[in-house]
Amino acid sequence: MGDVKVLGFWASPFSGRVEMALKLKGVEYEYIEEDLSNKSPLLLKYNPVHKKVPLLLHNAKPVAESLVILEYIDETWPEGPPILPKDPYERSKARFWARFVEDKCMPAMWKACWSRGEEQEKTKEEAVELLRILDSEIKGKKFFGGDNIGLVDITANFIAYWFGIVAQVVGLDEVITKETHPNLCKWIEEYNNCSFVKENVPVKDKLAEKFKEGIQAAAKSSPDSAS
Amino acid sequence: MGDVKVLGFWASPFSGRVEMALKLKGVEYEYIEEDLSNKSPLLLKYNPVHKKVPLLLHNAKPVAESLVILEYIDETWPEGPPILPKDPYERSKARFWARFVEDKCMPAMWKACWSRGEEQEKTKEEAVELLRILDSEIKGKKFFGGDNIGLVDITANFIAYWFGIVAQVVGLDEVITKETHPNLCKWIEEYNNCSFVKENVPVKDKLAEKFKEGIQAAAKSSPDSAS
Repeated sequence: MGDVKVLGFWASPFSGRVEMALKLKGVEYEYIEEDLSNKSPLLLKYNPVHKKVPLLLHNAKPVAESLVILEYIDETWPEGPPILPKDPYERSKARFWARFVEDKCMPAMWKACWSRGEEQEKTKEEAVELLRILDSEIKGKKFFGGDNIGLVDITANFIAYWFGIVAQVVGLDEVITKETHPNLCKWIEEYNNCSFVKENVPVKDKLAEKFKEGIQAAAKSSPDSAS
Repeated sequence: MGDVKVLGFWASPFSGRVEMALKLKGVEYEYIEEDLSNKSPLLLKYNPVHKKVPLLLHNAKPVAESLVILEYIDETWPEGPPILPKDPYERSKARFWARFVEDKCMPAMWKACWSRGEEQEKTKEEAVELLRILDSEIKGKKFFGGDNIGLVDITANFIAYWFGIVAQVVGLDEVITKETHPNLCKWIEEYNNCSFVKENVPVKDKLAEKFKEGIQAAAKSSPDSAS
């Protein structure tokens, strides 16, 4: 198995993905918490391009970018439960939806949280529409990966757990409801009820506190900020 | 091999990637040119989420998003020259750099082409810096994929061929020079000299003309546009 380290940040859904995948595979690892306001020499040395968590160190070799890390974990420990399906066409679908969550849904959902006024209304509508597409995709399935959690489910951890908490904080509860997104809501319930998931997500209240800070910081650093 | 169709647009580097990969693998396909101002029912039916080219149809099953398509091609026709390396760690590096080109370099380079004034200066500097990182990565190697063209090289076709043409059009020749990016320039020369590449890129003058239109359209639709 070799020496496996994860440099992460407790509140980050991106770090959460990597830890979830390693736990799914039964790979033991050392977790190293990063202070994002004072990044460690280890992080800066091994992820000089993006300087971001999560970073996987396997036998001192670095792998960066959470979606790249998930595929690396699947290929390096093929004996555990699969993260991607075996069939090339099913794999391409998993990759497509993982990128849809990453590139489309998450930025819209996050911006809907911290933006204000008209812009918030616009991004909220955008998030609702994007999640409707995801709602159709999950219809009739337990997980995006079929009967078991796979690449898309792990990638969408923000939608299943993080967003529910941050949405409550900022009063955006109506973005995902049983009326607007019935299938996605069923998936969220199914996902968060997995004992495997429960053991691998940050404590709700602590995360809510952290999000309040994050949202204020994002709103302040926005070019549209009034302050 | 089955029935293989590519829905593409002649001037698009994203379509170019897919055609290049199929030709590398020796896969015969039917090319269908899309009119992007009046998209075909076939495209809208099979890529309802993004409604974009390129789209691969393999035995009537759709695969969208060029980087997803490249991995699908590699896994579906493993007998041809490899697009990704075999080793999981080398694969993770190829995926990391392909995403770096896609998510970082290309948006900055394209924005440097169509933006104006101070914003253009800023994005030009950003593009120069990002390409400097790529310059270090290619140092001492013939291709990003080693001795042969691979995932990163195919993904970076815009940098090798398209950008040189558009940069001339808008007078941005100084973004990549032998002084600022010696290794990247060597790679560009090597890449464009491959007979395989020469046969698979659009005609220079026609592309320059198309870019002039594209740049005007991008500048006009920008929120910072004065018009």
